[in-house]
Amino acid sequence: MITMIGFDGDDTLWHSEGYYQEANAAFAGIVGRYVDLEDRRVHEDMLGTERRNLALFGYGAKGMTLSMVETAIAVTGARISAADIHRVIEIGKGVLQHPVELLPGIRAAVEAVAAEHALVLITKGDLFHQEKKVAQSGLADLFRRIEIVSEKDIGTYRRLFDEFAVAPMQFLMVGNSLRSDIEPVVRLGGWGVHVPYHVTWSHELEHGLKEDHARVALAASAQAIPAAVAALRERAG
Amino acid sequence: MITMIGFDGDDTLWHSEGYYQEANAAFAGIVGRYVDLEDRRVHEDMLGTERRNLALFGYGAKGMTLSMVETAIAVTGARISAADIHRVIEIGKGVLQHPVELLPGIRAAVEAVAAEHALVLITKGDLFHQEKKVAQSGLADLFRRIEIVSEKDIGTYRRLFDEFAVAPMQFLMVGNSLRSDIEPVVRLGGWGVHVPYHVTWSHELEHGLKEDHARVALAASAQAIPAAVAALRERAG
Repeated sequence: MITMIGFDGDDTLWHSEGYYQEANAAFAGIVGRYVDLEDRRVHEDMLGTERRNLALFGYGAKGMTLSMVETAIAVTGARISAADIHRVIEIGKGVLQHPVELLPGIRAAVEAVAAEHALVLITKGDLFHQEKKVAQSGLADLFRRIEIVSEKDIGTYRRLFDEFAVAPMQFLMVGNSLRSDIEPVVRLGGWGVHVPYHVTWSHELEHGLKEDHARVALAASAQAIPAAVAALRERAG
Repeated sequence: MITMIGFDGDDTLWHSEGYYQEANAAFAGIVGRYVDLEDRRVHEDMLGTERRNLALFGYGAKGMTLSMVETAIAVTGARISAADIHRVIEIGKGVLQHPVELLPGIRAAVEAVAAEHALVLITKGDLFHQEKKVAQSGLADLFRRIEIVSEKDIGTYRRLFDEFAVAPMQFLMVGNSLRSDIEPVVRLGGWGVHVPYHVTWSHELEHGLKEDHARVALAASAQAIPAAVAALRERAG
């Protein structure tokens, strides 16, 4: 029986990846004054830098900003001006400063699920930035626990299930990332409601989950989350 | 009666501020090729940038690195080369990569305190970096809970005391920072053992605590911590 529901934050409760993609476009605009964008494929270089730095920086906008500066210097053969590097840092600061904008219908959906289950929020990334987003979202009171983690893998969820005193089969995770929100929970024996966001960071596209897994349901929008949760709860018995 | 002891991480269990000060010296060396260091007072400019960015970046080496790059661009009037900016980023990466080096005698001191009390670790800063340091320290198993927080103020300690189900007067914090480790705990009614580190970040020097407070004891080194804890426990009755 499913007793506890976890929600992801970025791109599940509030917009996030869109801001990162806008930042990447603005970044390419600056670097594009120095190099032919088609030749250099700046976005691929940026993703490569981010991946190399992930073990050192972890996730979040500060690490992304440092990776943008590194990529800009590498891609331009160190020809980029200090003034343009400052513009790159301002782009990163913009991502940290953007207001929290809830996804359409998400408050009603979370409230509907909260009426029948214990809720927890499990969000990944920079502690300081995530805390600010949670506070600004106005949704914090709906969650029994708020967990900001550095990675969402099997080890993290196993630790959280212990802390929550819940068995995996009693836990259902709602999120936009098959890689971070759904696959590890399902592999541990739990349940997942996948709510795709309109854009996904390339890094999050890699996963090893069959889309038609029996313990996973798809919700096309926030409005569809309560029914998807109810359907899986029915299936769980 | 004191039942639970909290330990700070950076500069209490392991060296930290020394690495930051080395980074600042290397940074001044790079900027010093562009400007007269005495005139520009680079360290003060850097502290000013860090303070302005604190509300956006929070604590930690990634924010420090971004502040170093910003300061370098500002101080040199944007004359600094991209290659030198890359060197500044490498300085920041060095801080994130340094191995965890325990303070002399701290393992024995923590083990001695652990023999008679429940221990928790309360450390401030970047989630990802702090998790790595905790894991590398080899001390994690001595603590019942490990809390990585974005700020150590009265609100944070109040929330933690609730989570630990401990009254402030039952809690004693051991740490090097009067501002972050001792003052807020004592203001809530708890106890503090101050273990000064040989260097302190300017930001942490500001506090409003009387050094001879009745609920605060001084430990000149790690070896002196168990006796200082015992003395306060005696006083607590």
